[in-house]
Amino acid sequence: MNSARTWTAALLVIGDEILSGRTQDKNVAQVATWLNEQGIRLGEVRIVPDDIDRIADNVNALRSVHDYLFTTGGIGPTHDDITIDAMAQAFGVPAVVHPAACKLLEDYYRDRPGGLTEARLRMARVPQGAELIPNANSGAPGVRIGNVHILAGVPHIADAMLEAVNGKIEGGLPVVTVTVGAYARESDVADLLRETEAANPGVAIGSYPFFKDGRYGANFVIRSEDGELARRTGDKLAAALCGAGHEPIAGGI
Amino acid sequence: MNSARTWTAALLVIGDEILSGRTQDKNVAQVATWLNEQGIRLGEVRIVPDDIDRIADNVNALRSVHDYLFTTGGIGPTHDDITIDAMAQAFGVPAVVHPAACKLLEDYYRDRPGGLTEARLRMARVPQGAELIPNANSGAPGVRIGNVHILAGVPHIADAMLEAVNGKIEGGLPVVTVTVGAYARESDVADLLRETEAANPGVAIGSYPFFKDGRYGANFVIRSEDGELARRTGDKLAAALCGAGHEPIAGGI
Repeated sequence: MNSARTWTAALLVIGDEILSGRTQDKNVAQVATWLNEQGIRLGEVRIVPDDIDRIADNVNALRSVHDYLFTTGGIGPTHDDITIDAMAQAFGVPAVVHPAACKLLEDYYRDRPGGLTEARLRMARVPQGAELIPNANSGAPGVRIGNVHILAGVPHIADAMLEAVNGKIEGGLPVVTVTVGAYARESDVADLLRETEAANPGVAIGSYPFFKDGRYGANFVIRSEDGELARRTGDKLAAALCGAGHEPIAGGI
Repeated sequence: MNSARTWTAALLVIGDEILSGRTQDKNVAQVATWLNEQGIRLGEVRIVPDDIDRIADNVNALRSVHDYLFTTGGIGPTHDDITIDAMAQAFGVPAVVHPAACKLLEDYYRDRPGGLTEARLRMARVPQGAELIPNANSGAPGVRIGNVHILAGVPHIADAMLEAVNGKIEGGLPVVTVTVGAYARESDVADLLRETEAANPGVAIGSYPFFKDGRYGANFVIRSEDGELARRTGDKLAAALCGAGHEPIAGGI
């Protein structure tokens, strides 16, 4: 097993629409899954409102304790899109129009009604010193400054920006996950789970109950950076469940 | 308009399963919606892993700056359910078995296979000095200590606990939301939105773009504690959209 250090990232979700309950967030799960493919652990998420000081303070708190910070939301053309200004404040630099972003938007809006309006030009602004993250999905790019990646809030646009960064940032080993399910009450197998985790250093076992088709059950998720260890532990757990009278279901329920 | 102060809450979502991307969180939107009905604004969310120190530190950071803190997750019977221990650490008190919770679980498990095992008894533990939150959905209760409400992670059980607290905690005015949609590009109406917000102090206007059936559009969400003001601003915005050649759609798209 490679003992390289664990790389972590934080995610800052920006937007009143998430905190009001109007919009169901989808970026946490999307960014988490993508990060794991890069060998980076999502260590923490914060969701904050559209408020420049609150965004800037959280950016500085998070970028200093994680290898990476990703943000989603607030980079569109309207007055409530203030992420770039907040980021400039956090880094202590001005927000400036990025020449390449301006060119991108000029090209994108050349044959579209209205052309490159002042509102659209807002999407070419970056904190001074930033680079662009290509966005194959729509005109406006994402932005990278230092260890911070600034993504769109709309999930399929955020996804296009992640795609552009894929494989290009440094990470360690991805976490391998092995799931075993059973129609058992969590409380009936709690000892067995604790003992299995304790007997296999290097794995973490999570237990996630459900109620389905009138029956109680749970999925037991074994996580490790060592895939072989995770699989071996999964086999041991399945055998132990079987021995305790609970039919194990590989892959979960 | 009532000028009563704004009440705020934070939500701490606890669980490796959310940060790994395995489970799509549903508690943020659920708690946000319920809080608004109580006249309380969800001011901030944090998602942290199953780690006692990280949970305790975030509990203390959040409960001191908001009127309320709600947590979801980590109160089941298995080894990865550590919220009660973390909460006890945060409050500097021991975790103890709550007599009424013990009685509840005794009754619940009396005629169920296995009875009240040690693992199940874990669900009767609370930080010393805490009260129970009834749970009509399953045996184990939620817990309240100080301004912190500790809820289950499974959304329908968290919902049953919120139901038990409904109308019982102090709040101010709920935010009233009026939505107007249009098949307009955000960037074409950015000035109009900014001007409408500026001309109507007491409202916040959010703009949420979408791409549907091959057409770009956006929903414009007007929020205010003054329902009459929100509705009046919605009418003005609809008129302005119409005047700019964008058919307004009441209630959004």
